[in-house]
Amino acid sequence: METAKAGHALHFRVKEAILNLIKNGKYKPHTQLPTEAEFCKKFGVSRTTVRTALQQLAIEGYVYRKQGKGTFVSDKKVKQTLTSTVENFSEQLTVQGKQPSIKVINLEVIQADASLAEIFHLEIGDPVNKLERIRYADQEPLQYEVAYLPWRKTPALNAKACETSLYRVLENHYQLKIKKTVEHLELFLADDHAAKMLQIKNGAPCFSLETFAYLSDETIIEYSQTIFRGDRVNFVIERNY
Amino acid sequence: METAKAGHALHFRVKEAILNLIKNGKYKPHTQLPTEAEFCKKFGVSRTTVRTALQQLAIEGYVYRKQGKGTFVSDKKVKQTLTSTVENFSEQLTVQGKQPSIKVINLEVIQADASLAEIFHLEIGDPVNKLERIRYADQEPLQYEVAYLPWRKTPALNAKACETSLYRVLENHYQLKIKKTVEHLELFLADDHAAKMLQIKNGAPCFSLETFAYLSDETIIEYSQTIFRGDRVNFVIERNY
Repeated sequence: METAKAGHALHFRVKEAILNLIKNGKYKPHTQLPTEAEFCKKFGVSRTTVRTALQQLAIEGYVYRKQGKGTFVSDKKVKQTLTSTVENFSEQLTVQGKQPSIKVINLEVIQADASLAEIFHLEIGDPVNKLERIRYADQEPLQYEVAYLPWRKTPALNAKACETSLYRVLENHYQLKIKKTVEHLELFLADDHAAKMLQIKNGAPCFSLETFAYLSDETIIEYSQTIFRGDRVNFVIERNY
Repeated sequence: METAKAGHALHFRVKEAILNLIKNGKYKPHTQLPTEAEFCKKFGVSRTTVRTALQQLAIEGYVYRKQGKGTFVSDKKVKQTLTSTVENFSEQLTVQGKQPSIKVINLEVIQADASLAEIFHLEIGDPVNKLERIRYADQEPLQYEVAYLPWRKTPALNAKACETSLYRVLENHYQLKIKKTVEHLELFLADDHAAKMLQIKNGAPCFSLETFAYLSDETIIEYSQTIFRGDRVNFVIERNY
């Protein structure tokens, strides 16, 4: 948006110049960017400066690298709407021209630890469903999610059905209707498990979203923790006043 | 939440162990953590492992360093609510026991570039108010914000009044009532200007929030870009179904 960035370190200016060329459509999604050497010449700066600029653009998700092939322009980030209207993941992605899919990695019954017992008003050791899923856009992993549900209210949870919509399963199979969710969004550096699940580097900046889903009687029916790739996701929040 | 992290790299396990001690209240806000050497002994790991774990905890905002003094436990992150109810910044912070303040860094009239002209349906070169502000909690900078408003609709904007609430100024002085906002939240690595404004390191992971504020006739009255410190802010989103 701004033009006068005179005081900025060189690599920020190079980064912004490349970003503007991407935003203006000079460099289009999935096409290859000029080489580092070409950028050095174009901007009259050192290799290190160009490399730092490209690294930052990669972390922010504007470009990606292919081993031995160079740097390419990323597709637009996937928008996830955070509003009072629930549109589920698949609908949102379809609108953006992406092929959505959800994969269940694991579904098991575990024993509540102190923290789960407190969330669900259970005794420590009581059974809890633990559901691990990955959501993809066009085969690219976007979010890794671990959800917990009290087992007594959701016995015999069907893993396959959780590959469409968990909330629909809760409503149709268990007559459990989510009335409200409270979510906490914060910064999270990928640990090695999340990095593996999301095919990103250890320590890459991500979003962590904790969700508490409430029934109409104010009890919590689901607690989940979701890690979103920081380079591929963009949240949209609409508020009416 | 999880206990079995057997496959995790050592520094992730050390990080998690320290984090649990913070979360359980063993290490309290603003108290000093054991030294790196003490952690090495406690966990039987190398200095590098402890250092990596502490660095990641600092980026995520759980601890902070004081030059020559060591590592301290951070205060809780500041919660910013993103919901359909508008509670303004000052009210939210007061509830969390923090002293809020807003400082106007600069207010000037600039000429619309192509992008601002498009947003506000102006001609290129038309006058636009540019308002730069920093918001603080207990003297600690939390967010750096640059807002643009079409000058013809907001002439003689009073800088001092913008240190309380811009939306209140719009409503009381210009009879402009915000009806809806659309926000885009994404990951952003601090450039040197943002880093200086927020007293963080260049390249530190932050949140970038772009806001489009609409009047009831669907025209945009404000466009802003806000950088939030990734280590100090936590967003809360409530949705009713």
